[in-house]
Amino acid sequence: MSFSVTVRDHLMIAHSLRGDVFGPAQQLHGATFLVDATFRADELDEHGVVVDIGRASDVLREIVAGLTYRNLDDHPDLQGVNTTTERLCQIIGDGLAARAREGDMGDAHLTGIVVTLHESHVAWASYEVAW
Amino acid sequence: MSFSVTVRDHLMIAHSLRGDVFGPAQQLHGATFLVDATFRADELDEHGVVVDIGRASDVLREIVAGLTYRNLDDHPDLQGVNTTTERLCQIIGDGLAARAREGDMGDAHLTGIVVTLHESHVAWASYEVAW
Amino acid sequence: MSFSVTVRDHLMIAHSLRGDVFGPAQQLHGATFLVDATFRADELDEHGVVVDIGRASDVLREIVAGLTYRNLDDHPDLQGVNTTTERLCQIIGDGLAARAREGDMGDAHLTGIVVTLHESHVAWASYEVAW
Amino acid sequence: MSFSVTVRDHLMIAHSLRGDVFGPAQQLHGATFLVDATFRADELDEHGVVVDIGRASDVLREIVAGLTYRNLDDHPDLQGVNTTTERLCQIIGDGLAARAREGDMGDAHLTGIVVTLHESHVAWASYEVAW
Amino acid sequence: MSFSVTVRDHLMIAHSLRGDVFGPAQQLHGATFLVDATFRADELDEHGVVVDIGRASDVLREIVAGLTYRNLDDHPDLQGVNTTTERLCQIIGDGLAARAREGDMGDAHLTGIVVTLHESHVAWASYEVAW
Amino acid sequence: MSFSVTVRDHLMIAHSLRGDVFGPAQQLHGATFLVDATFRADELDEHGVVVDIGRASDVLREIVAGLTYRNLDDHPDLQGVNTTTERLCQIIGDGLAARAREGDMGDAHLTGIVVTLHESHVAWASYEVAW
Repeated sequence: MSFSVTVRDHLMIAHSLRGDVFGPAQQLHGATFLVDATFRADELDEHGVVVDIGRASDVLREIVAGLTYRNLDDHPDLQGVNTTTERLCQIIGDGLAARAREGDMGDAHLTGIVVTLHESHVAWASYEVAW
Repeated sequence: MSFSVTVRDHLMIAHSLRGDVFGPAQQLHGATFLVDATFRADELDEHGVVVDIGRASDVLREIVAGLTYRNLDDHPDLQGVNTTTERLCQIIGDGLAARAREGDMGDAHLTGIVVTLHESHVAWASYEVAW
Repeated sequence: MSFSVTVRDHLMIAHSLRGDVFGPAQQLHGATFLVDATFRADELDEHGVVVDIGRASDVLREIVAGLTYRNLDDHPDLQGVNTTTERLCQIIGDGLAARAREGDMGDAHLTGIVVTLHESHVAWASYEVAW
Repeated sequence: MSFSVTVRDHLMIAHSLRGDVFGPAQQLHGATFLVDATFRADELDEHGVVVDIGRASDVLREIVAGLTYRNLDDHPDLQGVNTTTERLCQIIGDGLAARAREGDMGDAHLTGIVVTLHESHVAWASYEVAW
Repeated sequence: MSFSVTVRDHLMIAHSLRGDVFGPAQQLHGATFLVDATFRADELDEHGVVVDIGRASDVLREIVAGLTYRNLDDHPDLQGVNTTTERLCQIIGDGLAARAREGDMGDAHLTGIVVTLHESHVAWASYEVAW
Repeated sequence: MSFSVTVRDHLMIAHSLRGDVFGPAQQLHGATFLVDATFRADELDEHGVVVDIGRASDVLREIVAGLTYRNLDDHPDLQGVNTTTERLCQIIGDGLAARAREGDMGDAHLTGIVVTLHESHVAWASYEVAW
């Protein structure tokens, strides 16, 4: 038996990818990423929720705010990082996990977090971290 | 190796939530919940399906019919229940599981059920039960 | 030649509808309404936009804030109003039009506004006002 | 009586917008734009269609190919253009209209074209040209 | 000032199209068509609606029922008809208009009907009839 | 910790299903299936991706090309197969897995593949294979 709750936000960034495998995406281009952040738990808390959805949304927005409306190629925290959709999922997911462990989403006994980034209507990626 | 099949329905309810954590949702308000009911199995049956999708849809509709167009605060079966999205997922999921175990969805050898309720385009919750 | 720009928000309300035609929706129930507000213009302004999308989103949010997380049956401004999806489109659309005429969305030379409310994945309504 | 047919494609670009009204979008950032190109006609042709959808899709793809995986700030055809969503709709719509008038979409007696660009799940813009 | 209300249903058919322009779609294949039926009116009726949405949905379902789970190439009413998406929009739209004129959707003072058929996530067609 | 990447394509087929359980779907009819192919891995490769998304999309398209615009009842590879949505998921999923094992998607260390086919806006099925 397990539960999850998901909130959606989005970010709009410029970046370029390194490696022949990326073809034209090696050029500076950009993306709107819809971000779905899923919080998992085996039980609901005393209020009957996985996590305070308001706080979870706020924390997601704070993490997104550090990335959106930027050229990720110039982002100080991302030097040397190939900012693929998969890697951005991990960065956001690890950021959410760190905030959850610090208690920033209430007393939730989370068991894992999944972050999905939709780069278009025909492609998306996910990262899951469990603990 | 595993399979699943999902059917979508919806319900439209009024309710209020108890607890400061819910902010303005403590007031009587309402929601349209899109309900996705997923049936899991490790093998397909003799017809090549997880479950008779017609019967699964009918059973889902019956369960939804017991909840929709209602004020859940006044629902006799939900007295004392904080009808969060997560909790409603569980109520519908347990209802489907009970009907499946009674054989109401044919001879399917189901291994689990997942119920997802979308409360808006930016928030949804899920409940998974396995057996 | 004409242009438009649309922003989406949502509201979650309880209400009941008056008239046999509404069947079970005569009971107190609720809905999540996705709100799409479309602003029309024949020409773009000096910045190349129909309207300042940030201000338009803010004004939409203010209007939505006056309706959401409420039981519309008890809303002082809606006494005697049958709050059908169509009527709510009109209320929001007229509210946006009034704000646009007051200049709250910048210098846009708007020619009309359309408001669409999605009450589920299978039903929605629209209201269009032109000037 | 009128008909239309719509095809969807997408582009992924970097750009920056000029004007205080754009706030953080003045910085170099990016977007995935879903592009919906709608072709209108008052009558269907001898095959029962508005336009050869294969050719229409190909022409849309060619126009999109001239824009996607680029930094629009450096695009030689867009110098001095504020590449708002509305303006990109117009550029793509006028491009499609020119190709339609040249006969590149068959013998269709089109009456107009609409281009809609979705910049996220909560914002989109449209441009309509009639002839 | 105008209003509309839309309901969605779907049909699943086999068919083939005649004409070189259709390429591989000249072979017997099939489609799921999502059908959006939009009813337009300049004013709302005494209940505050464009049309009784329940009756509109029922009439749409009856018309869809005459087409779905069929091979349209063998349909007695469609002999000699090239069943393109556009043409199917017209058939369903004219069917709805006939029923509306017969009074099967209540006393609604409709001004027009639009039918949109989505053949995939990247292509759809529409037919509009006004009176 | 795990990653996935998903690409979407579609196919349009005619078929009939065998077994009373299928009701009217025993008649020759058809479907548009949106196909979502998900590739899973526990780690990203040297480029920061699960799989070369371009190659993955190409392989998916090749597999889809062998099925689309066909009457599956007459397909030489599907004689004796009840082509339910679940079974088609498996056929496409096993096809992708075979190609992945042959190295057709680069050096990816995949751990599994999931294929989801959406037959309408209210029903879909999935097949997951892990290795």
